[in-house]
Amino acid sequence: MNGDQQPGKALTADLEWRERAKRVIPGGMYGHQNVRMLAPGYPQFFAGGQGARVWDVDGHTYVDFMCSYGPVVLGHHHPEVVAAAAAQAARGDCLNGPAPVMVELAEALVSTVSYADWAMFQKNGTDATTVCCMIARAATGRHKILVAERAYHGSAPWCTPVLRGVTPEERANVVLYRYNDLASVEEAAARAGDDVAGVLVTPFRHDAGYDQEFVDPAFAAGVRRLCDKLGAVLILDEVRCGFRLALGSSWDALGVRPDLSAWSKAIGNGYPIAAVLGIDALRDAARSIFVTGSFWFSAVPMAAALATLHVLRRDQAVERMAEVGRRFCAALTDQAQAAGFSVRVTGPAQMPYMTFADDPDGALISEFCLHALRAGVYLHPRHNWFVSAAITDEELEQALQATAKAFDMLRHRRA
Amino acid sequence: MNGDQQPGKALTADLEWRERAKRVIPGGMYGHQNVRMLAPGYPQFFAGGQGARVWDVDGHTYVDFMCSYGPVVLGHHHPEVVAAAAAQAARGDCLNGPAPVMVELAEALVSTVSYADWAMFQKNGTDATTVCCMIARAATGRHKILVAERAYHGSAPWCTPVLRGVTPEERANVVLYRYNDLASVEEAAARAGDDVAGVLVTPFRHDAGYDQEFVDPAFAAGVRRLCDKLGAVLILDEVRCGFRLALGSSWDALGVRPDLSAWSKAIGNGYPIAAVLGIDALRDAARSIFVTGSFWFSAVPMAAALATLHVLRRDQAVERMAEVGRRFCAALTDQAQAAGFSVRVTGPAQMPYMTFADDPDGALISEFCLHALRAGVYLHPRHNWFVSAAITDEELEQALQATAKAFDMLRHRRA
Repeated sequence: MNGDQQPGKALTADLEWRERAKRVIPGGMYGHQNVRMLAPGYPQFFAGGQGARVWDVDGHTYVDFMCSYGPVVLGHHHPEVVAAAAAQAARGDCLNGPAPVMVELAEALVSTVSYADWAMFQKNGTDATTVCCMIARAATGRHKILVAERAYHGSAPWCTPVLRGVTPEERANVVLYRYNDLASVEEAAARAGDDVAGVLVTPFRHDAGYDQEFVDPAFAAGVRRLCDKLGAVLILDEVRCGFRLALGSSWDALGVRPDLSAWSKAIGNGYPIAAVLGIDALRDAARSIFVTGSFWFSAVPMAAALATLHVLRRDQAVERMAEVGRRFCAALTDQAQAAGFSVRVTGPAQMPYMTFADDPDGALISEFCLHALRAGVYLHPRHNWFVSAAITDEELEQALQATAKAFDMLRHRRA
Repeated sequence: MNGDQQPGKALTADLEWRERAKRVIPGGMYGHQNVRMLAPGYPQFFAGGQGARVWDVDGHTYVDFMCSYGPVVLGHHHPEVVAAAAAQAARGDCLNGPAPVMVELAEALVSTVSYADWAMFQKNGTDATTVCCMIARAATGRHKILVAERAYHGSAPWCTPVLRGVTPEERANVVLYRYNDLASVEEAAARAGDDVAGVLVTPFRHDAGYDQEFVDPAFAAGVRRLCDKLGAVLILDEVRCGFRLALGSSWDALGVRPDLSAWSKAIGNGYPIAAVLGIDALRDAARSIFVTGSFWFSAVPMAAALATLHVLRRDQAVERMAEVGRRFCAALTDQAQAAGFSVRVTGPAQMPYMTFADDPDGALISEFCLHALRAGVYLHPRHNWFVSAAITDEELEQALQATAKAFDMLRHRRA
C-alpha cells in the first residue's frame, strides 16, 4: 500500500485530479484545502497513510507533521482504534437513537477532563464552538461573546475569517480583544456593557501565519477572574489543541478552569466527531437549546474516540508527542544555525511552527517547506504543525535528514 | 446479532442507559433525540440494525420506518456500500488533503442532478443550508433569505426552531413566508425591499407534527419567476428528501430548477456527509466564501456516497421505495377504515406521515405508534416516516400485521 516513488518527482496524477476537480468543484477546492491557499509545489490529493506516514496520489511518501490538520494523533490506521470502530460498525452506526457507546464516551470524557460534568457531541469543531456560544447566551440571557483578534474558531458566519457571504448582523455580537492582553479584554467587556455572555479563548495563541505564543498565566487567571466578576462564561476552544497538550484540559497546568470547552480533531483520531464539555452549573442552559444533526449520534466515531482516549492514556501518548516534538524543534534550531539562518520555533513542541527572521512575506519558510517536502517530510509553511504519537525514532531521524537537506538547499540558493 | 426478544417487553437495559446518560449528558439526551421529545414508551438506545430492521438495547427488533431520520436509504450494512467504504478506509480517510474519490463523487452528483454544475461537501445538513445562504449572499451582495414558516432547515442559530441561546441579530435577515402561498412570498420579498439574496424552500412541506403537503406546481414555478425577476437565488433544501423522491432533483418532475441545493442524510446511506450543488453562474460566489471543516474532506463517507448513488440507480431504489410506500399507505388507510378510524396519510409514499381526525393533541397517533412499536414496527408519532429500499415484501407484511394490531388495540381501548 505504501507509495514507492521518491518525493521530488512530478505530481502527474495530482495535476490530472486537479484538472478534473476544477470542473466540478468551485475553484478546484475550497476551505483550508483551497487551491489558492495550498503551498506552491504541494500535492493536493492524497492516496493513503499508515502510522506517521502519508502518501500522495503520485506515490510520494512523507513523514507527516500535519496529521490532517490535527485529527490524527495516534497515527493512521491505529489498530486498536480501527478495531473499536469496526466492532461498533458491525453492530450499527447511524441508528434511530444513540448507541450505549455515547454514554460511555461522555463518562470517559467527564472523568478525563477535570472540570467537565457533562458532554454533548457534534460533528465539526465549528459546531462545538457555536454550541458553546449558544449555551453561554442561554445561561446568561446576554448576547456578546468576546473573541481574540485573528483567532480561528471555525467557519460559521459568526467566526469565518473571510467576510464574503456574511451579514454584519451575524458578527454584531462578537467583540474583539487582543490575546494575552488582559486590559484589552476588560476594554472589550466595557464596550459590551452589561451584555457579556462569554469570553472565548484558545489554550495558546495559534493564529495561522504568525509566531505562536504561549498563554500568559496571569492573562488566563485574569480572564477567569473577569468572567467571575461579570457572571460571564469562560469558554476554552480546545478544538486544535485538545489531547495533544494534555490528557485533560490544556489549562490544567495553569490551574485555570473554564466553564465550557469545545473539542474536535484529535479526540477521534480522524473519525468525525466534536464535543462540548461543561460544568454542572451550565447543564440546564445546555439542555435548553436546540442543536442537533443527523450524524451527531452516530456510534462509530464515538467508539473510535473511546479507544483513542484509552490508547492516549495507556501509551502516555502526550508525553511521547512532547518528547518527539522537543527533539524535532531543538534539531531544527541547530540545523538552521549551522546553515546560517535565524529561525524562531514557537508554540508547544507537539504543535510547533517555524518562521525565519527577515522573512516578511513568508518566501523563505515556503521555500524551506517545499524543499523539506521534496526530501520526504510534510510541513506547512503558514499553519502550525502537529506531531503524532506514531512517529518512530527512525522516522524522526528521516524527517531531520529531510529538513537538514532543505536548509542546505536554501543556503545554496541564497549563497 | 439480531435481537431475539419480542417487542412489548420491558425496556430494562434502556432505562439503565438512560440513568447513566442523565448524569453525563444534559437532560439525558438532546436535539432530535431529546428525552422530552422521545415518544413515551419508545426506546432511547439502539444496539444495531441490518437491512430494514433495527433493534434496541433490550433486544426488541423492529421493521424500521424511520431510517435513522432519513439517512438509511438502502438499509443498514448494505454490502456494496460497506465494501466501498471499507476499501477506501483501508487506503485512508482523513488525510492531509482530499482523496480522488471526492472528485469522482462530485462528478457523479453533477451528472445525476440536472441543474448541478459543481459540488461542495460538508458534514451536516445544517452546514449545507448555511453554505447555500452564504453563497446566495456572496453572489447577490444582499442579505435577506426568505424562509417558510415552521420549515426546518437545521439547528444553527439562524434556523433552529428553538430561540434559546440565539440572538435576534442572527435571525434579522430571515424573512418568513407561508409554504404554497406565492402571494406571501411576494409580500416577504416586498418587506425585504431590494435586499433579497435568496428564497429557501423544501421540495414539499414536511413540517414536524403537521399533515404533509405537496408543493403546488404553480407555487414552485412562481417562486422561480420571482427569483428571476429579483435576481435572487432559488435554494432547494433537499436534505430530508434528496434521492428518496427522485434520483435527481426532487423538483425535476415539475420542471422547476433551483440555482443551489442542500443535501445530506440519504446521500451516504448513513455515512456522515452533506453537499451543496449549484449552477455555473454561482461558481465564483461559491469559491469566494470561506467554509471548511476538519472532516469535510474525509474520503470514506465519499466512497460510501458514490456506492450509494450507484446502487440507487442500478436497483431503481426510488421506484422500489415508492412502490413499498404506496402499498404501506394504502393498507394503513384500509386498516384504519376497517377499525373505524378516520386517518390522513400525507406526503410522498416514500416519506409518509399519518394523522387521525379529531386528534388535536396527537394523543391518538402517539398511542397508535406505541402499539405499533410493541407489535414490531418503528414509526414516529410526530415526524414523517421514511421508507428504505431494503424492506422486503415479507417485512412489509410483518409491518402491516403490526399496524393492524395497533388499530385493533386502539379500537378496543376507545370502545
